[in-house]
Amino acid sequence: MSGELAEGVISLGSGDAHPGILPDLTAEAHEALTARRAETLQYAPRPGLPALRETVAELMGRDGAPLAPSEVQIVNGAKHGLELVCRLLLAPGDSVVVTAPTYFTALPIFRGCGAGFVEVGRDAEGLDVDELDETLTRLARAGERLPKLIYEVPDFHNPSGVTLSRPRREALLALAARHGIVVVEDSPYREVRFTDRREPLLKAIDPERVILLGTFSKLVAPGLRIGWVAADSGLLERMAQAKTDGGSCPLTQRIITEFCRRGRLDEHIGRVRETYRTHRDRMVAALRRELPAVSMRIPEGGYYVWLSLPPGLDADMIESRAEAEGVAVLSGSRFFAGGAVGPSNQQPPTSFLRLAYSFAGPDEIDEGVRRLAAAMRDIAA
Amino acid sequence: MSGELAEGVISLGSGDAHPGILPDLTAEAHEALTARRAETLQYAPRPGLPALRETVAELMGRDGAPLAPSEVQIVNGAKHGLELVCRLLLAPGDSVVVTAPTYFTALPIFRGCGAGFVEVGRDAEGLDVDELDETLTRLARAGERLPKLIYEVPDFHNPSGVTLSRPRREALLALAARHGIVVVEDSPYREVRFTDRREPLLKAIDPERVILLGTFSKLVAPGLRIGWVAADSGLLERMAQAKTDGGSCPLTQRIITEFCRRGRLDEHIGRVRETYRTHRDRMVAALRRELPAVSMRIPEGGYYVWLSLPPGLDADMIESRAEAEGVAVLSGSRFFAGGAVGPSNQQPPTSFLRLAYSFAGPDEIDEGVRRLAAAMRDIAA
Repeated sequence: MSGELAEGVISLGSGDAHPGILPDLTAEAHEALTARRAETLQYAPRPGLPALRETVAELMGRDGAPLAPSEVQIVNGAKHGLELVCRLLLAPGDSVVVTAPTYFTALPIFRGCGAGFVEVGRDAEGLDVDELDETLTRLARAGERLPKLIYEVPDFHNPSGVTLSRPRREALLALAARHGIVVVEDSPYREVRFTDRREPLLKAIDPERVILLGTFSKLVAPGLRIGWVAADSGLLERMAQAKTDGGSCPLTQRIITEFCRRGRLDEHIGRVRETYRTHRDRMVAALRRELPAVSMRIPEGGYYVWLSLPPGLDADMIESRAEAEGVAVLSGSRFFAGGAVGPSNQQPPTSFLRLAYSFAGPDEIDEGVRRLAAAMRDIAA
Repeated sequence: MSGELAEGVISLGSGDAHPGILPDLTAEAHEALTARRAETLQYAPRPGLPALRETVAELMGRDGAPLAPSEVQIVNGAKHGLELVCRLLLAPGDSVVVTAPTYFTALPIFRGCGAGFVEVGRDAEGLDVDELDETLTRLARAGERLPKLIYEVPDFHNPSGVTLSRPRREALLALAARHGIVVVEDSPYREVRFTDRREPLLKAIDPERVILLGTFSKLVAPGLRIGWVAADSGLLERMAQAKTDGGSCPLTQRIITEFCRRGRLDEHIGRVRETYRTHRDRMVAALRRELPAVSMRIPEGGYYVWLSLPPGLDADMIESRAEAEGVAVLSGSRFFAGGAVGPSNQQPPTSFLRLAYSFAGPDEIDEGVRRLAAAMRDIAA
């Protein structure tokens, strides 16, 4: 998050947008604040502006998941969507399936609803469905309560960078159907892709079982605070009631609607892909050069490289040492929920680091990785 | 809320802004989206933009409550602020003091935290502090749990229009101090005033005990979704952690900051007062002409007239009949929490109506009151 780092520190920590690709939205804002003023400066309908719900339904349809506008609800970013979904579906004592590692910002949202965790591993194809199958079977046999939700980031997973394979997607949904568990598909990075291989949305494979969280944060700009939840319209009606803070900002909703309607989204996504591909390439090259002992899987999209450290190096120590050397990185230990339902005593692993290549430019990435290597040398010495 | 009424229905229901006084924010938006783009389109600090926290602290200081920027946190409107305060301070089984009547949109927020209500009456000076004193003394003697919060809209109360008098303000705070209860001062209409008499903010009288909720919704535009919470910085730090959906929109925060910095706020507040004073005058005159049997207290600020119906007329019936006649009004029965802690079986009174004079223009107000009178004649017939 901006504004939290000391002067001169290179940020490879948070998944902020690269300032150079934030679009010029002045024309859209002008239209929104003149011809559309009575809409954009007034209270908005809680489910979102009808025009934006249509626009999102169309985007989802192009991606293989045809939806009615009534199956789309506008929220203040995907995290707000997750919070609303959890408030509707979770009660204290419930549990949620998350992978190890998982998106760490989601964890306090689940915990805030009183939920515990069932952790499942990940490999090169994403969430380990066989392991989850065994866990669920064991819980069911023991007469224990099954998890209420399965939470997954199937495309360019944060932090691991891995995309859930097609066979895994199908197996995961079949398993969820067998046990009657809702699947939450959180896919902010889906269009930040450096590959033509595109797996189907979970929402496209099983529209009934899957609640999809989408966002314009990684596509257009995080500062607009606009995302969406795609789910059945009955659930969304209850969700609108749960939005006690009123509807999302109609001004930023209209700005995004105009941006899409003017046909600028596709061209902008092209720039996003090109920019972050270049960043990724620079980071991977720098890591190979400066830190050959570290292993990684090269991400084909998204914002992050997930590093496995050689034995003897502690990621928590590296995180703080690196900041002293002038580069912010995140210890992988932040990305583990802890094992069983309820508070866990298990220590999270400290053999991983997450590096974001989104915010920093190519030269900063080079310098940041040099500083990280220096920090690691200091610790090893 | 816009977009929910049938075509041709005059809205005297919701407290929306009059479209004619929504300000021109194109210059502020242009500045925000050009020179400040790296700030406005990026993730924002969770407590709010430092510049806006300073601006709000200054506004509060001018109103007799000097604050440090660290004692101000930016939220998505006052309702969002109330939700965050409740999430931090209330647990299931707690209770909240509200007046009868009270601001009805606050009720589901309290209920969502599992809280029940202790209702206290209102009169021409606002919240009845003597009655509350008796209730709290009785609860304390019986060894029962005292309420956690006292919730009050002290200026131009929604829906009753009454302002809490100076002696009552002091008595309320003394009572709250005696029992160690936090006071939530929700004051969206404070500057929408048609009188020069200005009572001190509760926050100015007892800065430690009072959490103030402020908003730009009634001052500038609801659509920007920007409000603030003024409280001690320790509570606000915990509140920032509870904002799991990230910070409020930096674009709309910057637009408001620029609006204030360019010195436009005071002039705009002048227009707001003039506009709504005219609306109020038209509504009061129309009510006296069309509905002489109805009694009311003339509000000296805010958005609403609270009507007491003559015996035999049912406000719930009038609400639905009026909509059929082409005017939206709200039955006063919506504005009562119900008596004791927990779900109440008490029926709310149906002898009041709330009319908003904010959204509709003067001629629509005339016509709306005529339609309301016709609906009431139909029912009486």
